[in-house]
Amino acid sequence: MSQLTLYGFLLCPYVQRVRFALEKIGVKYDYKEIDLFKLKQKEQAYLDINPFGKVPTIVINNQIVYESLPLLEFLENEFGSVFPQDNIRKTQQRIWTTYFDQNFISKMWGIFSLIKTKDVEGSKKLANELAEILRFFTLNSKLSERIKQNPSSYFEGDTLTYADFAIIPHVKVLETNYKIFFKSSLFEQIENQDELIQNFKTYYQNVVSSDSFKRAVTNPVTLPPQGDNFVLDELQYTTENFNYENLSETYMNKKFAQA
Amino acid sequence: MSQLTLYGFLLCPYVQRVRFALEKIGVKYDYKEIDLFKLKQKEQAYLDINPFGKVPTIVINNQIVYESLPLLEFLENEFGSVFPQDNIRKTQQRIWTTYFDQNFISKMWGIFSLIKTKDVEGSKKLANELAEILRFFTLNSKLSERIKQNPSSYFEGDTLTYADFAIIPHVKVLETNYKIFFKSSLFEQIENQDELIQNFKTYYQNVVSSDSFKRAVTNPVTLPPQGDNFVLDELQYTTENFNYENLSETYMNKKFAQA
Repeated sequence: MSQLTLYGFLLCPYVQRVRFALEKIGVKYDYKEIDLFKLKQKEQAYLDINPFGKVPTIVINNQIVYESLPLLEFLENEFGSVFPQDNIRKTQQRIWTTYFDQNFISKMWGIFSLIKTKDVEGSKKLANELAEILRFFTLNSKLSERIKQNPSSYFEGDTLTYADFAIIPHVKVLETNYKIFFKSSLFEQIENQDELIQNFKTYYQNVVSSDSFKRAVTNPVTLPPQGDNFVLDELQYTTENFNYENLSETYMNKKFAQA
Repeated sequence: MSQLTLYGFLLCPYVQRVRFALEKIGVKYDYKEIDLFKLKQKEQAYLDINPFGKVPTIVINNQIVYESLPLLEFLENEFGSVFPQDNIRKTQQRIWTTYFDQNFISKMWGIFSLIKTKDVEGSKKLANELAEILRFFTLNSKLSERIKQNPSSYFEGDTLTYADFAIIPHVKVLETNYKIFFKSSLFEQIENQDELIQNFKTYYQNVVSSDSFKRAVTNPVTLPPQGDNFVLDELQYTTENFNYENLSETYMNKKFAQA
């Protein structure tokens, strides 16, 4: 059995991609926190592991691999169960994950400046720009058809796969920040609540309600020990009283105060 | 045997990635030109195949897949021989291809405005910025070590693989445009010709000298028929008198005249 260690940061959606996959496929792993708030990822000890100074990183049998999407491919190759079997479906998942990365995520970072200034009008405009990306995605990836046929479907059907691991953690981050800072759901701010938006919302809720997503993100199975995450220490959370929204809010406020 | 059609554009490096791989692994394919100069990729007939309105696209047994890196993964799954066997090495190739895409390619598009204005000083500055990316890449991917051990090595060794297909077509485009418009090699414009730059240059030359690269890019095995590529028609090239540099120059000048 391989010895696998994941280096990450609790609130980082790129790390959550990998942790979500590990939870779903049931691989045992050690989890080590690299405190991004303290810029631990840029310290030499970590740069020796990952020259990019980014999380996530996996160390397995003394070998090192990193970058979130390559790591999901690595897990597929090593353990299977990350992708559907069919090659066309696999490729579709990679196409639509690429689309999401290049469009939704890049636009999403704009929100953090809006959050800082609590620009409510700007947040509505951004939500409606993001809605166009979600509509294109939901229509052309045929996700909408699949949700219509089976309202409890994930991206592919009844089983969580690559696209779910790769896409939903970022949507969750954005949705969480909308709720905290604008007291309103990202989805509520979208003006035309057509079927495509409704179906994407259903899809999103299916994934975040899954046991694996909770174990990876909103109710993590293990928390870093005292001293490894500055914000977590302050809030004194344990796996029992952990609150993802509060942690996110405290972290963002500290980041803004720091900037 | 599967019937495979590749939709592309002769000068597009994203298409060349896929064609290069097809030539190397020896899969038979039909090639159909979508004239980007004439914006054929945005016409409804093509959008029905590829909703992004981009090349490349593969149609195989009536199923449709697209996006250059997902297509390389598709070919690996379907035919093999795209990646090395070892999972860690596979992952390394994906990591360094991602790095190249996110850093080198994004910076590279800056050159096209420099070319238009023939900004020689700007081109030197850009070459030296790109050199920093090449140094980081060559050092940390351990490419430099491999070239030192075997000066005729590709990214992985004696066999062309994913990273070569994905990375080199873009370097060739940039190098070609430097030669045409600044009468100087991209590599010559780099100030400090250290070992990392020398080793990258050796690697680059190994790949562009390969038979598969030539068949895919500089001496394509099939050319689009009359009427399918506006610039090619004008130059009246055949597979016998085809000249990649001239075609590139004519295309770029026409693009600038059009803009």
